[in-house]
Amino acid sequence: MTQTTSTARDAFVAACRDAIGAAHVLTEPHDTAPFLTDWRRRYTGAACAVLRPGTTQEVAAIVQLANTHRVPLVPQGGNTGLAGGATPDGSGAQAVVSLARLNRIRALDPLNNTITVEAGVVLRQVQDHAREAGRLFPLSLAAEGSCTIGGNLGTNAGGTGVLRYGNTRELCLGLEVVTPQGEIWDGLRGLRKDNTGYDLRDLFIGAEGTLGIITAAVMKLHPLPAARVTALAALASPHAALDFLALAHRCAGPLLTGFELMSDFCLRLVGRHFPQMRYPFEQPHAQIVLLELSDSESEEHARALFEQMMEQALESGLVEDAVVAENLAQSRAFWDLREHIPLAQAEEGLNVKHDIAVPISRVATFIEETDAEIAAAVPGARMVTFGHLGDGNLHYNVQAPEGVDARAFLAQFQAQLNRIVYESVYRQGGTFSAEHGVGQLKVDELKHYKSSVELRLMRAIKAALDPLGLMNPGKVAG
Amino acid sequence: MTQTTSTARDAFVAACRDAIGAAHVLTEPHDTAPFLTDWRRRYTGAACAVLRPGTTQEVAAIVQLANTHRVPLVPQGGNTGLAGGATPDGSGAQAVVSLARLNRIRALDPLNNTITVEAGVVLRQVQDHAREAGRLFPLSLAAEGSCTIGGNLGTNAGGTGVLRYGNTRELCLGLEVVTPQGEIWDGLRGLRKDNTGYDLRDLFIGAEGTLGIITAAVMKLHPLPAARVTALAALASPHAALDFLALAHRCAGPLLTGFELMSDFCLRLVGRHFPQMRYPFEQPHAQIVLLELSDSESEEHARALFEQMMEQALESGLVEDAVVAENLAQSRAFWDLREHIPLAQAEEGLNVKHDIAVPISRVATFIEETDAEIAAAVPGARMVTFGHLGDGNLHYNVQAPEGVDARAFLAQFQAQLNRIVYESVYRQGGTFSAEHGVGQLKVDELKHYKSSVELRLMRAIKAALDPLGLMNPGKVAG
Repeated sequence: MTQTTSTARDAFVAACRDAIGAAHVLTEPHDTAPFLTDWRRRYTGAACAVLRPGTTQEVAAIVQLANTHRVPLVPQGGNTGLAGGATPDGSGAQAVVSLARLNRIRALDPLNNTITVEAGVVLRQVQDHAREAGRLFPLSLAAEGSCTIGGNLGTNAGGTGVLRYGNTRELCLGLEVVTPQGEIWDGLRGLRKDNTGYDLRDLFIGAEGTLGIITAAVMKLHPLPAARVTALAALASPHAALDFLALAHRCAGPLLTGFELMSDFCLRLVGRHFPQMRYPFEQPHAQIVLLELSDSESEEHARALFEQMMEQALESGLVEDAVVAENLAQSRAFWDLREHIPLAQAEEGLNVKHDIAVPISRVATFIEETDAEIAAAVPGARMVTFGHLGDGNLHYNVQAPEGVDARAFLAQFQAQLNRIVYESVYRQGGTFSAEHGVGQLKVDELKHYKSSVELRLMRAIKAALDPLGLMNPGKVAG
Repeated sequence: MTQTTSTARDAFVAACRDAIGAAHVLTEPHDTAPFLTDWRRRYTGAACAVLRPGTTQEVAAIVQLANTHRVPLVPQGGNTGLAGGATPDGSGAQAVVSLARLNRIRALDPLNNTITVEAGVVLRQVQDHAREAGRLFPLSLAAEGSCTIGGNLGTNAGGTGVLRYGNTRELCLGLEVVTPQGEIWDGLRGLRKDNTGYDLRDLFIGAEGTLGIITAAVMKLHPLPAARVTALAALASPHAALDFLALAHRCAGPLLTGFELMSDFCLRLVGRHFPQMRYPFEQPHAQIVLLELSDSESEEHARALFEQMMEQALESGLVEDAVVAENLAQSRAFWDLREHIPLAQAEEGLNVKHDIAVPISRVATFIEETDAEIAAAVPGARMVTFGHLGDGNLHYNVQAPEGVDARAFLAQFQAQLNRIVYESVYRQGGTFSAEHGVGQLKVDELKHYKSSVELRLMRAIKAALDPLGLMNPGKVAG
């Protein structure tokens, strides 16, 4: 780790003012504060400056100055990360590099189905630009109104469309990156096939800014579906939901673009805190699945396919009840139910969150076994289990027992709950971080669960590309 | 580069006999010969031994011995590579490690849609195992009867299904790799989402064995389509073919799984050397597109969609004529036409081959401009232009003028033709190797066309992971 003197920091900040303009070098506490606390308000750091470069060249200039003065840098996009990856440590020795001003759409090539965007473009703007050109940019997640594509790439964001379209990684064809030495790598290739050497692109994606700063990207677009149809299905168990998923894959093939699981308790929690949101079935059911089909032909075709699939599922007893959205508003209401679960959890009080994935075939077994372990260890703990069943990714959260003080509950049980969950995940061949990354939140889990071979490989790469350790130190592999 | 003495080599070979059994250490010329010449017979190397380990542990033991004795290793799968990546140099100092005996299917998880296979499993066996389980493994290429999944991963093989399913990279979820130090990295995860550190998987994929030896992989499966329908469409120009591609994307969305372009001359060449293969249209047409739809519903649905699409294309004048395969045999005949182009080229005589890609939107311009340049520089040169238009990947090959001696033609014009083609490719933002990799064939192109920043990043990674330079030296970045 590099030690920086306060004299060096002052010289760095002064040089940054020259390089990118004093107006874009923030040092006053009321200016820097929004950049120093993460979205979940779990971490508050300090910074010698918040730098807001406007171009790739200015990012490169900043990194060169950071090398000269040995100042560690923390890149930040929309500051919506869930693992503290964009928040500096408390030393005040680090500088935050906000990419928000790199917000240009550089190109859209409809025939190549690509869009070239700078790192600071907000995800929703990418979606909107694509739609205006008759194309779909399928990355979609709760923070899409404020997260940036650079942050999505840095954390390899997932979301609700992964089942069909993949993670951010699978949506990216090329990158522009400022290396830890302050050089610009122009890898902005819009090619579907390119086998000329090591895959640097995928090394930078998901590295959370620890290997360099992503400044622009070529992202893949898809044809805009002619229709999307959403439905809710009620089932007796996660096992039934898995069988239903297999049926949906068989019937709908690549038209299946969403498959979200919500336990009954999730919806009851939504109902408690958002009474205007109605429970979608007459009877209560143990599990609800939200499905979405995206059809390139017509709404009529999608509905026919849906009905055929649901008929099979109802006849075989797999599905207990089902309701297909009649219009866009109802479809929106179904998704709203799903998206209000974390909001309802926040209203209910502090809770222990997990963003885990296991092989899809093991999701039901995982839930069954881990629920039982938690019930034995922490009687009364309330499981808030929902997520992207189609990719094996669950938000497997634990709420304090009814009436128990949440803060005391967390203090007493959080570490134990994490251990139970992650041990169970690993027995099933899963991961402790499916789509939120490692940041600073899960550095210890990474050290604990990765093999020594994998840690050595990761550290060798880090040392090779960033020998001075200036790129987001303390994050990911530490 | 490491220098090895012949004493050290002898000691290495003796130790390998102990480690994996003398029967699997080949040193006799008639035993080793098949491993020392590449499939195109462009390169013949020498080796101190050809090693045939039977397990991952034996591969690790070999690599550890290679470290002790400083013997460079050249991994080899089915020996079907097109860039000489699996052929040793001529020194006799290197050892070939054939993965052919690592040929077990370790697991197939139908609910997770994954298959876990060892590196030496032949691609067709992976396809067959998947099909028996009602699943599709979509990687498909000419060598599928003899290439291995390890080689496919090492070179990130492409083929005809990339348009819909991606390259080998996109089909892989996890890897097992023996590192250059002879450690085993168990990254055999079958997860759709896993954001826990650097993407080592994609670093090893496409590295052509220069960063370690892939011994097993978890590959993604897809639902088996209910029907596949193939058609040929006749068009006036590559520009029309591009417009037709956009129409097909719009109409068929993710059901479009194949879109191959063949110029008229390609088919005439096939007709000349394989007279039993009939030209599929009554009139000659400048360009032929082979399309394939894969439908999860039914053949009836696929045909209806096809007819709707073709109607639009014919009405708008985009397509001049079209023929839809009536049955599997006819569909097979259409693909045979496509696959006989390289065979017809071989019959016609030596030729200059290129495996290039440009952004899809620039394919037509690329062909137009480069054809003109070549016509000016080498009058009479005959262009054999075909390939995967749906991913912007062309096999843009040049045959000697009619009646001209091919060997003399190559000697005189090959370097000049390569330069014309690659300069044109780079003006269009393309690549000199789309799906065949770099191997030893294109090391000079790599050094010439990659930026110094990218070369430095690649070399830093190579030096960090393989400091002794024992892994397939001389390949990729040299």
